[in-house]
Amino acid sequence: MIVVLRSDATHDEALAVEHALRAAGSEPQRLAGERIAYLANGVSQDLVRALPAVAEWFESPATHPMASRPGPRTVVTVCEQHFGDGHVQIVAGPCAVESPEQVDAVASACAALGLRVLRGGAFKPRTSPYSFRGLGLDAMRWLREAANRHGLAVVTEVMEPSAVDAACELADMLQVGSRNMQNFPLLAAVGRTRTPVLLKRGMSATLEEWLLAAEYVLEGGNEQVVLCERGVRSFDPAARNLLDLAAVPLLRARTHLPVIVDPSHGVGVRDAVIPMACAAVAAGADGVMVEVHPDPGSARSDGFQALTVPMLGELVARVRAIERAMTK
Amino acid sequence: MIVVLRSDATHDEALAVEHALRAAGSEPQRLAGERIAYLANGVSQDLVRALPAVAEWFESPATHPMASRPGPRTVVTVCEQHFGDGHVQIVAGPCAVESPEQVDAVASACAALGLRVLRGGAFKPRTSPYSFRGLGLDAMRWLREAANRHGLAVVTEVMEPSAVDAACELADMLQVGSRNMQNFPLLAAVGRTRTPVLLKRGMSATLEEWLLAAEYVLEGGNEQVVLCERGVRSFDPAARNLLDLAAVPLLRARTHLPVIVDPSHGVGVRDAVIPMACAAVAAGADGVMVEVHPDPGSARSDGFQALTVPMLGELVARVRAIERAMTK
Amino acid sequence: MIVVLRSDATHDEALAVEHALRAAGSEPQRLAGERIAYLANGVSQDLVRALPAVAEWFESPATHPMASRPGPRTVVTVCEQHFGDGHVQIVAGPCAVESPEQVDAVASACAALGLRVLRGGAFKPRTSPYSFRGLGLDAMRWLREAANRHGLAVVTEVMEPSAVDAACELADMLQVGSRNMQNFPLLAAVGRTRTPVLLKRGMSATLEEWLLAAEYVLEGGNEQVVLCERGVRSFDPAARNLLDLAAVPLLRARTHLPVIVDPSHGVGVRDAVIPMACAAVAAGADGVMVEVHPDPGSARSDGFQALTVPMLGELVARVRAIERAMTK
Amino acid sequence: MIVVLRSDATHDEALAVEHALRAAGSEPQRLAGERIAYLANGVSQDLVRALPAVAEWFESPATHPMASRPGPRTVVTVCEQHFGDGHVQIVAGPCAVESPEQVDAVASACAALGLRVLRGGAFKPRTSPYSFRGLGLDAMRWLREAANRHGLAVVTEVMEPSAVDAACELADMLQVGSRNMQNFPLLAAVGRTRTPVLLKRGMSATLEEWLLAAEYVLEGGNEQVVLCERGVRSFDPAARNLLDLAAVPLLRARTHLPVIVDPSHGVGVRDAVIPMACAAVAAGADGVMVEVHPDPGSARSDGFQALTVPMLGELVARVRAIERAMTK
Repeated sequence: MIVVLRSDATHDEALAVEHALRAAGSEPQRLAGERIAYLANGVSQDLVRALPAVAEWFESPATHPMASRPGPRTVVTVCEQHFGDGHVQIVAGPCAVESPEQVDAVASACAALGLRVLRGGAFKPRTSPYSFRGLGLDAMRWLREAANRHGLAVVTEVMEPSAVDAACELADMLQVGSRNMQNFPLLAAVGRTRTPVLLKRGMSATLEEWLLAAEYVLEGGNEQVVLCERGVRSFDPAARNLLDLAAVPLLRARTHLPVIVDPSHGVGVRDAVIPMACAAVAAGADGVMVEVHPDPGSARSDGFQALTVPMLGELVARVRAIERAMTK
Repeated sequence: MIVVLRSDATHDEALAVEHALRAAGSEPQRLAGERIAYLANGVSQDLVRALPAVAEWFESPATHPMASRPGPRTVVTVCEQHFGDGHVQIVAGPCAVESPEQVDAVASACAALGLRVLRGGAFKPRTSPYSFRGLGLDAMRWLREAANRHGLAVVTEVMEPSAVDAACELADMLQVGSRNMQNFPLLAAVGRTRTPVLLKRGMSATLEEWLLAAEYVLEGGNEQVVLCERGVRSFDPAARNLLDLAAVPLLRARTHLPVIVDPSHGVGVRDAVIPMACAAVAAGADGVMVEVHPDPGSARSDGFQALTVPMLGELVARVRAIERAMTK
Repeated sequence: MIVVLRSDATHDEALAVEHALRAAGSEPQRLAGERIAYLANGVSQDLVRALPAVAEWFESPATHPMASRPGPRTVVTVCEQHFGDGHVQIVAGPCAVESPEQVDAVASACAALGLRVLRGGAFKPRTSPYSFRGLGLDAMRWLREAANRHGLAVVTEVMEPSAVDAACELADMLQVGSRNMQNFPLLAAVGRTRTPVLLKRGMSATLEEWLLAAEYVLEGGNEQVVLCERGVRSFDPAARNLLDLAAVPLLRARTHLPVIVDPSHGVGVRDAVIPMACAAVAAGADGVMVEVHPDPGSARSDGFQALTVPMLGELVARVRAIERAMTK
Repeated sequence: MIVVLRSDATHDEALAVEHALRAAGSEPQRLAGERIAYLANGVSQDLVRALPAVAEWFESPATHPMASRPGPRTVVTVCEQHFGDGHVQIVAGPCAVESPEQVDAVASACAALGLRVLRGGAFKPRTSPYSFRGLGLDAMRWLREAANRHGLAVVTEVMEPSAVDAACELADMLQVGSRNMQNFPLLAAVGRTRTPVLLKRGMSATLEEWLLAAEYVLEGGNEQVVLCERGVRSFDPAARNLLDLAAVPLLRARTHLPVIVDPSHGVGVRDAVIPMACAAVAAGADGVMVEVHPDPGSARSDGFQALTVPMLGELVARVRAIERAMTK
């Protein structure tokens, strides 16, 4: 951040600002110029706003130097499947893994449609303690077996640092869910692995906060991070969330990391999933992730937003048509 | 609205509910059933939520019977140009009409690209009284003349009931802006005309409130209403507004009126306009409306989000490609 | 606004910025300093954000010079009743004037409790065209007569410029409602009168936008403006709105205008009105405004949030106790 | 939740609903009545909204049976200090524990003002990985020692399940922060202890979601839960968060758990902390929690919102005056 003092700031006030920036853990560098200004990393806007001698400040890319480094775009590779290589990656699978049969049916359908990455929940974060919270390690094994049977890569959610190792053994990509986007011990834990990470946007996270969450993972040494837009909190009960598709082009200008979109959670209304998947691709997303269930009416969680298998087929066809139209 | 009482509601409590519904201007109809329930139009959710004997209620289409009537989709026709006929209508023009030369340059560029509807602001609602507020009737005349010269229809904003008549003489379509979505005297005034209306979504309007605003126009006898999504207020400073593209499929299930999208205001960042216009069309929008300026750097308002003429050309090409991909 | 260019900005880039600022209607003044900087009023943050040569900017009080002028706090006087003189002004009355008897009963109760300003709606902005929209001029006359009978001043809402003159004849203070906070022709119209104005905050207006709306009135020559916080739009259906009481101390640091709070609309739940009125006063508000009805269950609008007359008595007693505790 | 089917629902449709509810982990009970209705716990509104045969539903207290059980209000006791016993509990301390001297200075000041509960951060969740993240176990020990020296109880934040045991040894109350309100493994972990829990509201959590988070703790067997309102995300950059004081009376009607308010994070502006602490108490809060620092300008985190020691003295005096005014 560059911090500029008021033109009438006194020497003592400047010392006080330096003191405050140092106290906040930064090593401020005085910049040349008639007005007094500093380069100071790692300090918050809230802090500088509160210093009376400060007139202005602005964020530099150095706020999240790894997430916004210049240079080539990152391609994230999950078992030879790519995110960010110019093709649209379609990830699909059940909200929750419910039985070996259910996940095999979905995996089989995905493979038949040419998809290569299977999602599925084994440990489910649920708003109510009385809701179905997933079948745990058993589910993770069924997911793995179904994926192996059909030649698919696996992405699944981890909810706590102590579960990361087991997940790395069974999954090819670790999802950090919306509710955990600022679970910093978890971000650090997945950052210590070399397994690719799917980082969902928090319920009401700004793009800046989201990139800083990614920075936690990157800073740990794991450079394989895919961002996943999944809607933010809104005042309108018409939808479950408000899908922020403009995040796609706005992030493209801010980060080299791939960005995909989850229209299932992003709207939470089955009939809107296909149009919004198409819209995401038209906006430039590197992929989409959707929930599918062999029998959504019997799903143990979020069945209302799951696609049927035939709908998944329609989605794939329509998304591919948009993709072709964009690359012509 | 259907209002259902608690199963233990007494006769006296039921009378009190009937009394309250009548007092609110409704004529409640008792529904058959063991639990006491009423059909009561024109009462608010807030009212029924506050009645202790009421257990549940739900909105019926009768909340906005005209905006959500069953039957064929409405096609709005502006000088032989259609909204809602299955083709994507692209509306373009300057944020503000600044001179006869400026608007003619834009009109000429639009016509050359095959566009047929020109937008332009003559009376501008501005957050600050010290901002440029438009050149008024002069601007409206220059807009009309430029449109005539190039064979275009004209849409422009009206801000008060007393200005509606003059606008109808010079424009082919009246825009009601976001800040006026609940300016009920203005809605009534445009509802009394037979000029098509472009009704933008309010800054933080729910879909329900937006449809009720449309209902004001329809109820006045003017059935030619196009809804225009233009982003809602958000917590994230990364963009000017949060463009809610899911409104497109969600409205399609709720209303027969055409829906278009304004990505210029919806994001407020020039480089995001083309991707979001493409996304809008992929989501199923009946059209897009964008701001264009011969020299955005010199624009007197909102130049930062205006497209250049070459960018408009690119937008048209890319939107048409998406449109073709969708209809194949 | 002070606009500071990047330290590596070229002379040509500086000229382009000057050009853009002038085009936006401002007369930029070059400031002394090694980095190039300008004072430029009347330009939007959106504009300067979009200029690539601009590194930083900040708003100065000159953004709304009248609403934030230094100097003594404004006292608004309505028929010898004051807002902003250090005492808590309690405004009460029915949401809508429904009959001469109803408004007289409320006026009588208010007077008996020592209150001196009566509110009441004659022209009601309603989300649905099928809701009760007020009884118009008749209601305004009943309100006036009841107020006269009990020695009260009258505040009532105006919805359109053409209705301002008639309202000035019958009312002592004009309310501009939330939905009209950015109805600029209306703000200009009430700014041309010398009748005090009660300006409610818009549904999702920032403090900055609200002060700019006040600036429209002040700039018209009417300096008698009271700001009224009434809750903003929120994601939580638990309440009708989210009452932003921190606006009270934050505005006190930004403006000399009095600030009152409307907890009836601000929460929309009757049982929360008294606690939030007390909280508003403890936060430093210059007054509160509440809805009261002789028989809330029969109210034709918003009865669910109206206080009964005995509750109004309790509110007055509790608010006065807080007021005394604060001035000791 | 009570789920009511459309009056024209067929027998087959009813079976499908039962199937869906069972699949979601519920054991639906058919209710008596002409229309078909079920009592079904543990299913989400999203699920039932998506079932076409469902006409209406409503949440019953059984959604969070422990957090909203009828009966006496819970008093939470932390080392003989009470929350919810009718007195206002004032918790104060530094944002982060920075040195033995700093925390001792604050503890000493708190004790001198008659306060009895000391807060302080040892493990700090920070948006940026480059910000100061707290001094860890050392800080927790300094906090404990300072508290012991001055006869205070200690509340501090825990960020991950594996840290709960150590925190229980050194602290008297465990804070779960906003970013972790839906960190379900952490909620379960603190629910297994018998140490009182301070549960902050999530950044954009509804009251319903917050009570469900409390339910996770209660369900684990830990009944000593205090809720802490700390502001929610907003569109207005004027403040750090939007403090939702109406949550205080609204929660009082929904839960027996004590509710306190943190105006330091809730507004994030030092000068607004005292007015909002007073407002919280006037709204009926069971306590307030504020940040204080011997030298806010040198604080390593959030110094801009920390009170000085003299300001803490003023806060205590003014809060006590409001408290007395309310109990007279």
